[in-house]
Amino acid sequence: MAKVEKTAAVQPDAKDRLLAAALDQFTRRGYASTTVRELCEAAGVTKPVLYYYFKNKEGLYLELMDSSYSLFESTITELISFSGTSSQCLVHFCQGIFDIGCQHRQVVQLCFSIYYGPPQGAPEYDLDSFYTRILDEIAKILQRGILCEEIRDGSVNDMAWSILALMNVVIEEHICLREPRIDGAAMIRMIQLLFDGIRAK
Amino acid sequence: MAKVEKTAAVQPDAKDRLLAAALDQFTRRGYASTTVRELCEAAGVTKPVLYYYFKNKEGLYLELMDSSYSLFESTITELISFSGTSSQCLVHFCQGIFDIGCQHRQVVQLCFSIYYGPPQGAPEYDLDSFYTRILDEIAKILQRGILCEEIRDGSVNDMAWSILALMNVVIEEHICLREPRIDGAAMIRMIQLLFDGIRAK
Repeated sequence: MAKVEKTAAVQPDAKDRLLAAALDQFTRRGYASTTVRELCEAAGVTKPVLYYYFKNKEGLYLELMDSSYSLFESTITELISFSGTSSQCLVHFCQGIFDIGCQHRQVVQLCFSIYYGPPQGAPEYDLDSFYTRILDEIAKILQRGILCEEIRDGSVNDMAWSILALMNVVIEEHICLREPRIDGAAMIRMIQLLFDGIRAK
Repeated sequence: MAKVEKTAAVQPDAKDRLLAAALDQFTRRGYASTTVRELCEAAGVTKPVLYYYFKNKEGLYLELMDSSYSLFESTITELISFSGTSSQCLVHFCQGIFDIGCQHRQVVQLCFSIYYGPPQGAPEYDLDSFYTRILDEIAKILQRGILCEEIRDGSVNDMAWSILALMNVVIEEHICLREPRIDGAAMIRMIQLLFDGIRAK
């Protein structure tokens, strides 16, 4: 153990490099297909360093998810401090989630591939928590909008899912492997369409 | 070859069983992790039967995708023969796509896992063609709606992506592994919200 601690001590960023390598390898090659040896080679560390920080591949995956969720949570906290009309708050919130999704594209890709793909033996992680958290905050903004009569009374649930859907489809366009066909500006226009309705008056 | 043909002749449904086994194995275990031997075992056929019908695993995957696309295409053809107002046509179309997605849930799951997951070595298949086809038909309905002044003039592209997004989020809820939180009825209410707008008048 003394030897490992010394190795870690001379590589102060070894932990971050392992997290970055895990994100990259798990996303591009899949969780199941990536071995501890490959992770260590990609991070430029020896196996004992990985075992020291994360215990095993499962531990590394879980730490990657936890740190991603923490970053996501602090973004949410920042986004909901914004004040304005409901439509301004929704646009600000969706834009912020979209931006962080684009900045951490590989994290979103990894979540999608674990969520929709074969389980791959990855340890359980409540990936729904990201989605549910977004949905809850959108619902709160909508509820405030109904209270102050900016939004008409109706099913907050249906409205929240609609906003989530518009955000989701644009984020999906940005995590697939080809050029996205819609961008953040389109998302904002789509939210405006939902506010104003597309039916001719 | 004579022996293979005889084997195939006594198993008239061998081809369909191989397609069904491939869909099930690729979806649950992943394309890369599934071997020809496992596919044959699951279908209850010998390897020469698989080689006879599909040449190899790649051929089996491509045939599975092609037959799925054919089924999808014939559903589209049927759905667009419906007549009614634009909102009725959109609801009918989205409901039909949602229904076929639920009936062929594993196909949708497989497409999602290949699209968002690690490439897994699966041969190239234009998975975007499903999405683009849906988007085009939604745009046509919207254009007719604008022409007959049921829908206000504006960006057909933004409107089509909005409708697609509402349909997409509900389908996604139905292909993940837990109980879906929204259903086809919610999708229809969400489309109505987009038509009428959520802003208080």
